[in-house]
Amino acid sequence: MSSSVDKPARAQAGPMDQVAVRRANLALVLGDVRASGRASRADVARRTGLTRPTVSSLVGELLDRGLVRETELRQDGTVGRPGRQLELDGRRVAALGLEVNSRYLAACSVDLAGRTVQERRRVHDASRSGADETIRALAALAVELIEDAERSGLRVAGIGVAVPGPVAAATGRVHAAPNLHWADVAVAERLRDEAGLPDDLGVVVDNEANLAALAEWELAHPGVADLVYVTGEVGLGAGIVAAGRLLRGASGFSGELGHVQIDPEGARCACGRTGCLETKVALPAALRTAAPDLPLPEGGEAAAAWDPQERTAELLRRAEAGDPRTLAGLDEIGRWLGAGLAVPVNLLNPEVVVLGGYFAAVAPYLLPATVRELRARVVAGDAALCRITGSVFGFGAAVRGAAGVIVKEVFADPGRVEG
Amino acid sequence: MSSSVDKPARAQAGPMDQVAVRRANLALVLGDVRASGRASRADVARRTGLTRPTVSSLVGELLDRGLVRETELRQDGTVGRPGRQLELDGRRVAALGLEVNSRYLAACSVDLAGRTVQERRRVHDASRSGADETIRALAALAVELIEDAERSGLRVAGIGVAVPGPVAAATGRVHAAPNLHWADVAVAERLRDEAGLPDDLGVVVDNEANLAALAEWELAHPGVADLVYVTGEVGLGAGIVAAGRLLRGASGFSGELGHVQIDPEGARCACGRTGCLETKVALPAALRTAAPDLPLPEGGEAAAAWDPQERTAELLRRAEAGDPRTLAGLDEIGRWLGAGLAVPVNLLNPEVVVLGGYFAAVAPYLLPATVRELRARVVAGDAALCRITGSVFGFGAAVRGAAGVIVKEVFADPGRVEG
Repeated sequence: MSSSVDKPARAQAGPMDQVAVRRANLALVLGDVRASGRASRADVARRTGLTRPTVSSLVGELLDRGLVRETELRQDGTVGRPGRQLELDGRRVAALGLEVNSRYLAACSVDLAGRTVQERRRVHDASRSGADETIRALAALAVELIEDAERSGLRVAGIGVAVPGPVAAATGRVHAAPNLHWADVAVAERLRDEAGLPDDLGVVVDNEANLAALAEWELAHPGVADLVYVTGEVGLGAGIVAAGRLLRGASGFSGELGHVQIDPEGARCACGRTGCLETKVALPAALRTAAPDLPLPEGGEAAAAWDPQERTAELLRRAEAGDPRTLAGLDEIGRWLGAGLAVPVNLLNPEVVVLGGYFAAVAPYLLPATVRELRARVVAGDAALCRITGSVFGFGAAVRGAAGVIVKEVFADPGRVEG
Repeated sequence: MSSSVDKPARAQAGPMDQVAVRRANLALVLGDVRASGRASRADVARRTGLTRPTVSSLVGELLDRGLVRETELRQDGTVGRPGRQLELDGRRVAALGLEVNSRYLAACSVDLAGRTVQERRRVHDASRSGADETIRALAALAVELIEDAERSGLRVAGIGVAVPGPVAAATGRVHAAPNLHWADVAVAERLRDEAGLPDDLGVVVDNEANLAALAEWELAHPGVADLVYVTGEVGLGAGIVAAGRLLRGASGFSGELGHVQIDPEGARCACGRTGCLETKVALPAALRTAAPDLPLPEGGEAAAAWDPQERTAELLRRAEAGDPRTLAGLDEIGRWLGAGLAVPVNLLNPEVVVLGGYFAAVAPYLLPATVRELRARVVAGDAALCRITGSVFGFGAAVRGAAGVIVKEVFADPGRVEG
């Protein structure tokens, strides 16, 4: 409350130094131009409460940094000197997203207007390659996209990296990624070295489920305060938004849903435990259950080449063709998924559960059983039931979220973009 | 960030009206006096940035409302007119906490300095009495404590009520409390009618686990941002603090841990499901497992009279005496508890888990097995392990938290206390 009360708030906060005030005002002006679509300097001054000369100077800086641009002269018949309008310049600065998945590497560049400029996916068996080889391949992908962006006149403002494991946010180290056989890998540092990135180019590493949850929340469900995103790939994890914030937990390990025990009589999991949810509903389990004639290739060239997206497409084709084994398999997976979702739904009471990865593609064949099972397990009854929906971005949610983190950083502090 | 930048923040927030500014400043002055222990009006003016005349006028109002008091004249040899010091007046305004438990009713009054003025517990079989009888008994308890408080010169500023079920925060209705056989009970409204409360006396109803979590968090672990509180009474529930906030979920149903399925081969639960965590570790299960010769009385006078606290004391006596059946039983309960705690620990990665109710009393005999089991199930390994600790308030956490909500309301808006 004190922030709305002028004098006390100022007395408590203490004076900001000039540089910090200017950076904050730069963000304020950029945010105003972004929100309004098009605005004159006078509009910006009026709405922000800043003086006209201050706005002009800040706009000059934003023009230099390629963050806003001037439109053509106004031809609207207003009296007086026609002013140029300002608008967000989406085409000069880009954010890079990268993803290490156990089956593929992905990359995308996104401009400040949120448009995807480039997207690449490359099948890569990160579970067998080891961290060195994988980070080298990731760095090569990053360099390609940075060069591409530069050729199109876009400057890359930073890189977000999604990894399938818990991350120490401050250092960008991955504690452990069981599906990659990684333990304590300094991803940010090693990517920086391998790609020869300049020191002032920020690299942010985060968990894939967290980043996918951010992408879905901010882009597809912006008004929702409580959302759970569940990945559906080789592994299974969750990204949790609660009370309008992404939860990370005390040490960055939140969202471990894949290894909750769902069936004490179940199969042994790669993690060493028994009956983990991942063994019941992740993509390999779905293929075993719903397309048992399409086993995952083991070993050698073939193992390196299987692609989750291609297999998902095959599952969907069979389901759409009415293959009874596929339909029965997806129904069974759907039941286990409902049992698994009961855990975060009972504990967190989200408004929306977003299903990512292969779940999104085959959702129509999973959801009836999922909702039935969930209903039976939600203690508070139908009043606590949530919407369950497929991800808008499918397998691309995490990499999109990784780029989105950088876009947000640019808007929060435009001064970090070089002039 | 904009709230730290003077002009833009004001432009965005719009002007507060005079009344709202005065109420906010009243809270600011009270908060300053509370934080500083003792302060002169000049100290308050300096620290808050308010003018001396404004501070004097606000202090006058706080004196009228019995929220601060003046100390004796200063005898410290300073030059000039000796000023009276101000301090929080803990002895004039009280907050009332009430609790409906399936086995007892509890009440406490707490003064603004956080001291417990009165505490009462009354064995009451709410699971058989029906909502009408229970709310009548609760109202009688409230009236007793209000009259007691008034006799000691304390004015009750509001009533917090803890109930064992999810609550719609806005209306104070309890959606469902399975252990009470309640469905959609308008607790706030009915308590108000039964006790004949004045219209301006606020009644806040919340879930027992949420309120207990608040009490433990604010009073025992104030620096912790991620905490899970687990009740250990006839029922089992959780209160979740994540990223520095109490989570309620989209519709107030968060924290349902008791009916997570932990053993698909297990016993049928009162909720109709099978193998719920509650059937493994709540107090009745602990008594069956660790003191099978002390079965819970069924039916009649005896059933109405069993007291969780008394039974817990008996469990503890036997454990301390080294009764092998009790020790083995508590070890088994401890294992199931570890399996159950793995769910919120994997999903939320808390820094601290607080065990309430009977768990707190027998913690030394549960924890070795609990920690062992939890360790085996925490996916991120020891880095994600949390402290597990017994509640400071034991069976009294929820009722203390209920009173605490009212204390916080008084400090947030002292203008609500009558002059």
